[in-house]
Amino acid sequence: MAFDKNSRKALLLHKKLKGKIIVTGKIKNLRSNEIKLIYTPGVAAVCEEIYRNQEKKYELTSKGNNVAIVTDGTRILGLGNIGPYAAIPVMEGKAVLYREFGGISAFPVCVNTTKKEEIIATIKAIEPMFGAINLEDIESPKVMEISDELEKSLPIPIFHDDRHGTSVVVLSALLNSLKLTKKQLPTVRIVVAGAGSAGYGICKLLVAAGCKNILVTDSDGMIYKGRPENMNKYKKELGSMTNPKREKGLLYDALKNADVFIGVSGKKNLITSTMIKEMNRDPIIFALTNPDPEIKPEIAKASGAKIIATGSYLYPNKVNNALVFPHLMRAILDKKINKITLKLLLATAKAIAKTVSDKELHYDNIIPDTYDKRIQKNIIKAVSKLRLK
Amino acid sequence: MAFDKNSRKALLLHKKLKGKIIVTGKIKNLRSNEIKLIYTPGVAAVCEEIYRNQEKKYELTSKGNNVAIVTDGTRILGLGNIGPYAAIPVMEGKAVLYREFGGISAFPVCVNTTKKEEIIATIKAIEPMFGAINLEDIESPKVMEISDELEKSLPIPIFHDDRHGTSVVVLSALLNSLKLTKKQLPTVRIVVAGAGSAGYGICKLLVAAGCKNILVTDSDGMIYKGRPENMNKYKKELGSMTNPKREKGLLYDALKNADVFIGVSGKKNLITSTMIKEMNRDPIIFALTNPDPEIKPEIAKASGAKIIATGSYLYPNKVNNALVFPHLMRAILDKKINKITLKLLLATAKAIAKTVSDKELHYDNIIPDTYDKRIQKNIIKAVSKLRLK
Repeated sequence: MAFDKNSRKALLLHKKLKGKIIVTGKIKNLRSNEIKLIYTPGVAAVCEEIYRNQEKKYELTSKGNNVAIVTDGTRILGLGNIGPYAAIPVMEGKAVLYREFGGISAFPVCVNTTKKEEIIATIKAIEPMFGAINLEDIESPKVMEISDELEKSLPIPIFHDDRHGTSVVVLSALLNSLKLTKKQLPTVRIVVAGAGSAGYGICKLLVAAGCKNILVTDSDGMIYKGRPENMNKYKKELGSMTNPKREKGLLYDALKNADVFIGVSGKKNLITSTMIKEMNRDPIIFALTNPDPEIKPEIAKASGAKIIATGSYLYPNKVNNALVFPHLMRAILDKKINKITLKLLLATAKAIAKTVSDKELHYDNIIPDTYDKRIQKNIIKAVSKLRLK
Repeated sequence: MAFDKNSRKALLLHKKLKGKIIVTGKIKNLRSNEIKLIYTPGVAAVCEEIYRNQEKKYELTSKGNNVAIVTDGTRILGLGNIGPYAAIPVMEGKAVLYREFGGISAFPVCVNTTKKEEIIATIKAIEPMFGAINLEDIESPKVMEISDELEKSLPIPIFHDDRHGTSVVVLSALLNSLKLTKKQLPTVRIVVAGAGSAGYGICKLLVAAGCKNILVTDSDGMIYKGRPENMNKYKKELGSMTNPKREKGLLYDALKNADVFIGVSGKKNLITSTMIKEMNRDPIIFALTNPDPEIKPEIAKASGAKIIATGSYLYPNKVNNALVFPHLMRAILDKKINKITLKLLLATAKAIAKTVSDKELHYDNIIPDTYDKRIQKNIIKAVSKLRLK
């Protein structure tokens, strides 16, 4: 990748900052008599209080507002397996957004192992200090197995952003896009390119939302029930819940007469002008791979796409998890939700979608801006109604 | 323990704060064009830069200023094995002091396992995000084995505060106490009560400093070379480097004609007035167990002790690791020191001791105050001279 102007500016800023996050005390300019309270000897009474009543840990420590952003660096942005050190800048960036938009203390845990069992053991071991775990940019299907195992064994919620966060922001954007193009969830033909965590999460949520005609593709083309090659537990599940007519063929075939393209493939320039031209009227194109999308927005537009969204902050319609994770996590921590369910995600997606009023809604404004204070308010309201506790 | 006034105030403060630390971004009030730089798409260039040249992680991330405070909660203050949740308040307090006095981002890692191999594996796994590890309040000798193993396998320094930090602050205080009482390191009889991490660390450093007559006691009395009962690898080492005359007997016997008592036993009221009365002229009493010392300072004084120090912030002469760890860690991180050596600790102890000028030095002021800005300056100067890199 040649460094463009934005990349050069990013490098300079990172050099200047020397890391983007700090850990700091809530009490600044500590006075001598405060040390006696926050440290020895006063702190002993606080420890004893928690020892006697373990639930007090949420009252007397920061646990309830701490999130571990865990990665092994195997699937970072569109960059792939770059290891735990090169992954740090993304995780720190995410931590900054958690603080800025969610008021959350998120700390990156970049692990120096790619072995599933070791990652699981590490997360189990560090649980005491955290109110929730955010799994991030770990290769699939390993990350799904990690998430499933931790959900069973840990008392705190396992938020898998690539799966859960992406599915929410996609459904939000889709709900509003269909409103604009006057199409309906149960009848549109949706093509999801990518059958990793994001693709899996999106399909699960779209099905839960009422979509009936989804096609998922991976490097071997459309996934269908009983496909012999390149399957795993999660792709088998996808085969069963999508592609009702057991269509076969490549992405090109899937996109014929499709209404919606959702790209979470990790591959830049995956779709072409020709493919868009073969889609149904008013094509909806979500080219979400970062940093380089499945098709450049300007090309998609010239090819007749009606609504175009990317995951990037360089274009309008930023279908980016940042719209979801700080706000949803705030609700999760505040309401002490200990499991991420489809019901929770569905309510969150609807809450985000309706944040854009009918008056505000247009082709270049299908989802709210990250800064929109109404997002969090609406999510918390929706989640409170669920009584998921 | 009945809750005294200080404990009640500590509890109230902790309830009000709901945890003492936060993780926050270096950029506040993030503007939209900054998100493009610290997060996607700009951050990708920073990741690639580190991927190509791994050493850039120190330039472009917060790693070099992050310390993990790792505990399993098995040996917290004088409270013992209270587990990882009840340990959080101490670790958060320590993190506050690291920030306040060292400008360091310290994050507590309270692990939900007491198994040596699992603790080692967890620390190895989380290494990428940290510039140093601080082992804290883990039971001995397990913690020494953990420290030894990590020192061999990790590229970052393993600072074991109970061992290293305590040894430095004790030697500093001792150097100045001997100056006041006009006694010499090689000739004084020193009794160390406690043969855990702190006792071991203190003896190692005292021997390195030139002490020739040290006696260490544990629950079975004086340790001597070849003692048959209650020994381990580290106590065997203590037996060889202390007690040159292979004296036998209890703490009471050891203290007869002793010049210095150093209590790191974890036991309150371990020594009595009678014992102090049998010591050599001008007894020096360091009763360092927290929160309740081996003897109350007022009793020690009434029994003829010339210099009395505790680890508590309630009395003068606070021989507390807080004097050492934020300042020494600052030097370690700044100078990229990757191993804690006796040479480093010795230089640090001398630097702290000499921070108290001859004019300032008196029986109730044997070590500098935690707030004394000269401490860090003196340590960094001393460490720079060592060229330990």
